[in-house]
Amino acid sequence: MSKELQREEVMNEERLRQMIEDREAAELSEYITENNPIDVAQAAEDLDDDELWKMCSLLPSEDIASVMEQADDDLRVRLADTLTNNELVEIFHNMAQDDIADIIGDLSIGRRKSIFNMMMDNEKAVIKTLLEYPEESAGGIMTTAYIAIKDDLKVSQALEKIRDIAPKIEVIETIFVVDTRGQLIGTVDLRDILSSGKDAMIADIMKENVISVQPEVDQEEVAKLVSKYDLNAIPVVNHRKAILGIITVDDIIDVIVEEYNEDILEMGGVSKEESLDTTLVQSIKLRLPWLLINLLTAFMASLTVKAFEGTIAQVVALSSIMTIISGMGGNAGSQTQSILVREIATNDVNFKKDWPSFVKEIFLGVINGAINGLITAVIVAVIYHNFFLGVITVIAMIGNLVVAGIFGFLVPVVLRKLGADPAVSSSIFVTTATDVLGFFIFLGLANLFLPLLL
Amino acid sequence: MSKELQREEVMNEERLRQMIEDREAAELSEYITENNPIDVAQAAEDLDDDELWKMCSLLPSEDIASVMEQADDDLRVRLADTLTNNELVEIFHNMAQDDIADIIGDLSIGRRKSIFNMMMDNEKAVIKTLLEYPEESAGGIMTTAYIAIKDDLKVSQALEKIRDIAPKIEVIETIFVVDTRGQLIGTVDLRDILSSGKDAMIADIMKENVISVQPEVDQEEVAKLVSKYDLNAIPVVNHRKAILGIITVDDIIDVIVEEYNEDILEMGGVSKEESLDTTLVQSIKLRLPWLLINLLTAFMASLTVKAFEGTIAQVVALSSIMTIISGMGGNAGSQTQSILVREIATNDVNFKKDWPSFVKEIFLGVINGAINGLITAVIVAVIYHNFFLGVITVIAMIGNLVVAGIFGFLVPVVLRKLGADPAVSSSIFVTTATDVLGFFIFLGLANLFLPLLL
Repeated sequence: MSKELQREEVMNEERLRQMIEDREAAELSEYITENNPIDVAQAAEDLDDDELWKMCSLLPSEDIASVMEQADDDLRVRLADTLTNNELVEIFHNMAQDDIADIIGDLSIGRRKSIFNMMMDNEKAVIKTLLEYPEESAGGIMTTAYIAIKDDLKVSQALEKIRDIAPKIEVIETIFVVDTRGQLIGTVDLRDILSSGKDAMIADIMKENVISVQPEVDQEEVAKLVSKYDLNAIPVVNHRKAILGIITVDDIIDVIVEEYNEDILEMGGVSKEESLDTTLVQSIKLRLPWLLINLLTAFMASLTVKAFEGTIAQVVALSSIMTIISGMGGNAGSQTQSILVREIATNDVNFKKDWPSFVKEIFLGVINGAINGLITAVIVAVIYHNFFLGVITVIAMIGNLVVAGIFGFLVPVVLRKLGADPAVSSSIFVTTATDVLGFFIFLGLANLFLPLLL
Repeated sequence: MSKELQREEVMNEERLRQMIEDREAAELSEYITENNPIDVAQAAEDLDDDELWKMCSLLPSEDIASVMEQADDDLRVRLADTLTNNELVEIFHNMAQDDIADIIGDLSIGRRKSIFNMMMDNEKAVIKTLLEYPEESAGGIMTTAYIAIKDDLKVSQALEKIRDIAPKIEVIETIFVVDTRGQLIGTVDLRDILSSGKDAMIADIMKENVISVQPEVDQEEVAKLVSKYDLNAIPVVNHRKAILGIITVDDIIDVIVEEYNEDILEMGGVSKEESLDTTLVQSIKLRLPWLLINLLTAFMASLTVKAFEGTIAQVVALSSIMTIISGMGGNAGSQTQSILVREIATNDVNFKKDWPSFVKEIFLGVINGAINGLITAVIVAVIYHNFFLGVITVIAMIGNLVVAGIFGFLVPVVLRKLGADPAVSSSIFVTTATDVLGFFIFLGLANLFLPLLL
């Protein structure tokens, strides 16, 4: 990435460590102000506690605040631990309230209380409210730093207010407009304020019909709205339409990336809490439950095979061929399921409207099953010199790929209806179906036509 | 979603169709201007060509432009087909150049030429340049509508310029600063311009060290930069550091969502081009190749079983137990692999640094294998009244879960080194390993200790 990133200097762990050792306070502070505190935050992740402490002692509060705002949860906790309560409260003066709430939320109850005691009442109240929203809700990710202006202001007055507040808030392109009762009634683009005459009324240049969310809404839903409507901020309002805060697009990107990572992990049967650095014991705790659930379904497939042990004992070739039938069913099932999971995530699938696609999946199962089945059958018939073994292989392959199409389609749809996340839980049901029914169809057919196979 | 979406009126297919039938031109136009053209674009997807034509005949060019800007590729092509060349060029006057380039790129060569002939030379040149960048590169997604000001301007002059251009561009919070040779040398926040004195120089309030990309950079890399540095726009520059365009954060969100959907589909063995509406023939073409590759690997596993047919013939219980061993290996492998794929996507894995995690995966395989193996062994020993069958089950389960850990870790790392996308192609290699080696270890052990099992 570095060659594409055109920057004069890049902050990394060694450079940061060097600056701290050499006590280059001014240079470090300048770097943070001039460049991106995120680079310093990322480099600081690899420092030990002593180095962190030295870094904090070198920097003024506003720089520590900038770094903390960009730090991940882990580094935030470690930074907070190296700071005294007085220092922390001083740093909070340079931070957005939602970041303060996040940091306080991670402190011990005792320390949280002491710090609350050192804060002003109105600030304390805002932060306590913020702490009450679930972490992954609109309320949990919103910031309280935004501009709202009254609709009866003139452009010149609005501009004056924006000038005053702008340095302290996150998004200035979209200005929220409230009526005298404080209800959100519109938004106005800063560009429209800039290009309108001084005496124009805000009420006349604002857009009505604001898209907003309530604080309980899940962050994933918020992300969908922001993404659909290309918003650079979405207001969070209570049931009386008073603005509680806004969610900015950079936080929405974080949400999307986070949910993406969760899905990738959970689809593979891993918890979102696990990473490469998770300890052995913790990894066992996180992964074993999923393996045990899978063990149960593996037994279901195994018992299906066991039921036909008598048949297999007579035609042992069945034991190697059956793994092809079940395996290919699993692959075809995961294809259908992936299409459905994607479709549900973006458009919502409605069986009444989409039944032709369901029928298509069945036909796909027949055709792909016939092609893969025929190839397999020819090889099987040649190896084992038995034409009928080939015939039941084709039929079973078609049958199991139809099973794959049916379950690959229905399982995600039904899970969605039941309120479960189809991305995460579909595959276990689909695979169980293609394993159990794949073995059953193939071995069942073999049992029926046993005399022809001997 | 609708209950959280606090909007007075929602545009849907029926409402749009009704408005078109009733020729409510003014109402529809007002809806587009006042609300979100994206709603109209989405509703229009379900209209037939005749209705689309009627809709276009009702609306002024600027409204058709708004809807086209929000339309997906498919609808854009259909809209372009209902319009004459003259109408299209007229609509282009209300559109950003990157959107025009996207639309022209989808037209037939003949029509493209006719339309180029109707355009002004300078505009034609810009659009031809845009068309040259690959669709998924920085150049392919950038817009040419941005503000760049010279560093020797005063704040009052800059503000004047911003006022003039603001309505025509996409992002105004970040203003790009160029020197007299046109090289990008910094950015200035609109909030800093607003809060500075009229006579302050732009050079004094700008930030240096701009993060920029070159036009060839892949869109996924661009998305990573924007997400990391919380940018609301990233400039695209040539090797002389002249600005070619900018990429705005809303387009970055589209990139992230698009890449996400691609990954979900490709992990399931489906092409990103397939959706629920893909025709049967097209679906076969898209899915069959992946199934055939899998058929090859299924045969590898099957041949491993075949090699031990003699053993299975003597102890037929092996045929049902072996499916548990291979299946559990597949599940454990996909757990390890998911962790690695996520880690590679976010941090990059370095074997020199991360080897302790590799060792951890092996221990995890031993422990999870022992637990799952013991449970399976007890049940197996009870069902088949054979202690030694239980013993080889435990050993094989441990062996195959270690295989899962090793391959689940190494396959994504190696694929990444080879330049392949680990999210997409890891699973086939990991599953082949756990299937083939799972069968081999279990049946091989059974063969070794055959006398004990009889």
